[in-house]
Order: sequence, then structure tokens, then C-alpha cells
Amino acid sequence: MNFCSSCGARVVQRIPPGDDLARHVCEACETIHYQNPKIVAGCIPEWGNRILMCRRAIEPRQGLWTLPAGFMEMGETTEEAAARETLEESGASVEIGQLYSVFSIPRINQVYIMFRGQMKCESFQAGAESLEVKLVRADQIPWDELAFPVIRIILERYISEREQGTYGIYVGNIDTGRVLRTDAD
Amino acid sequence: MNFCSSCGARVVQRIPPGDDLARHVCEACETIHYQNPKIVAGCIPEWGNRILMCRRAIEPRQGLWTLPAGFMEMGETTEEAAARETLEESGASVEIGQLYSVFSIPRINQVYIMFRGQMKCESFQAGAESLEVKLVRADQIPWDELAFPVIRIILERYISEREQGTYGIYVGNIDTGRVLRTDAD
Repeated sequence: MNFCSSCGARVVQRIPPGDDLARHVCEACETIHYQNPKIVAGCIPEWGNRILMCRRAIEPRQGLWTLPAGFMEMGETTEEAAARETLEESGASVEIGQLYSVFSIPRINQVYIMFRGQMKCESFQAGAESLEVKLVRADQIPWDELAFPVIRIILERYISEREQGTYGIYVGNIDTGRVLRTDAD
Repeated sequence: MNFCSSCGARVVQRIPPGDDLARHVCEACETIHYQNPKIVAGCIPEWGNRILMCRRAIEPRQGLWTLPAGFMEMGETTEEAAARETLEESGASVEIGQLYSVFSIPRINQVYIMFRGQMKCESFQAGAESLEVKLVRADQIPWDELAFPVIRIILERYISEREQGTYGIYVGNIDTGRVLRTDAD
């Protein structure tokens, strides 16, 4: 950030009064420009004993496999964002169900909020950001071609839990690998 | 947003290629300026049968009561943000525990991520953003002087659950009042 998005003057980096972090501050119009982490919302789309995965058509990690997820937009709820991203990337209509994980990735300032999602019918097709979309059984997950560490952590736990027939809710930090099961009592 | 924060040119609002929402776009340097919801992280600080509440020293809702919570910063996890905000606003050191709620407020583009927090000792004091900080029993909660609807929804449920001795995990939309208990199986 070099310029004030409000008045167009150059910004400086300094700690505003009463704050303890350096911010981009406009000395012309006195606007303080805060930057904050973004939410990536998505789901694990379920259809019988299979889940829907997408092969990425865009960078980063073009050609690798992921779960449908993307940046939450203004005016949305987390569930709406998860359902919209799933529809956009995989063509699947899902009923967003149980919250599954809230994973922070502090290194890139993202928080992944992932749900389990029930596909409303066996209908899907690659959206603009996907090369290919596929329903896979546990033994068909392309473990060697996953796009992001967060997807591996979520899928490993999900597959193990599905075998046991019971699912937890997890909060974690992808950068350090710290994951806490944080179920209701 | 009027000017490009990268090059200082005027921005226009238009739908970029491959997108379906209008964004602030710089036609000089081609930067697309996305805007996304922000995370407010906080906790319910518990000490025995009491919880710690803060009376706000700042707008909005100056003079009214709330739980410690605030905007997540770059480089943090949600738990770190919740613990930091609790320390800043109430002077209390907490061990962040179970996730308690993920509430979207689409009207103001915020997502509240609230945990239960265990106070490490009975020590607290008003931070710069609080007029007063107080440990309260359920029958002492200032229901008529709460700062935000999200705080009321969280506290009503929390108090009712504490009586029953068991806590859920909730996902909801504060604008519509829709709240879903989304516990692990």
C-alpha cells in the first residue's frame, strides 16, 4: 500500500495514537488503513460414500486437487460463501451442514472455515476455476496431488472419522500443525 | 475507495474478466482491489461461576457492556486474536478453550468467532477501550445495557447451557436471527 484509497495522497507507516501496531496512515485526510486476515469458506461435498474434489484450473497450484473453497464476499454468511464457492467451482448444489474446521494460516493471513456439505443430487461440472471435478471414494483421493496442506489435514481426519462414523470439530494453525479437537461437551 | 492504493490513480467500479461482482479496479496499473469481511475474535472469560464483561470506553456503543473481542490482526490465529483482545480490553490472561460460535453479520461484513476462555487467575483491569471490567454471575448480567445483539444471543445461550452443564457449538447469521447448533456427532 503506497497511496490513500480515500484521498489519493501518499501513506506512511506509523503507529496511530492508542494503537500498538504500525498501520498505513494518510497524513492528508487522517484515514487509517487497517489490513486484516481473509476468510476462505468451503465444504466437503458428500454423495453417498464419495466426496467431490476439484482439480484447479488456476494458480496457485494449477492442476492439483482441492476441495471447493474460496474467499468470502461482502454481504455473505460463512455458509452462503461455502455453498456459493462449491457451486461456482464444482457445479454442485450443496446443503451446508455441520461446521468441520476453523484453520488459521497466519503466514498468508487466511482463515479456512470448512463445513460438511450434502450434495442435493449427483450433478456437478467443472466451473471456470476447475479443470476437472470428480466424485472419489476414500481410496481414490489423489494424496500425491493435493493443492494445499490444509486440504490434506482436513481430508486425512475426515476419512479416518468417516470410517469410525463420527465427526469432530477442529480449530488449528496450519503453519505450526497444531490442531485441537474442540467439540461441544 | 476512490484511488488505487498501489499506484495512486483513480479507480473505477467494474466487473473484471472471469468475475461476476463489481470490484474497484485500477485501469492504470490493473490492480483489482478486493474487499472482504473481517473476523472479530473473542471469548467468554470464565472464572468459577462468573464471567468477565467489559463496559465499552469507545464508540460504537460507548458505556454499554460486551465480551472481550476485536478485529483479528495479520499474522495471528483466531485463538491468538481472541486471547490478545481479552488481555487488551480486560487485562485478563485466558487459556482459549472450546470454540463456541461462528456468527456472520453480513450487514456489516463481520464474522464473530467466539471461544470459551478459562481465566488463568482472578486478575483483570480495564484496558484503554474499557471503562470498567467486572466478573458477573448469570443473575448479574446487565441485559438492558448490552452493546451488541451478537453478545445477547451468545450470552443467553451460554447461561442456559451452563445451567444444564453442557455446551454446543453454533453457526449463525445475526441479521436474520438464524442460529444452528452444529456440534460434532
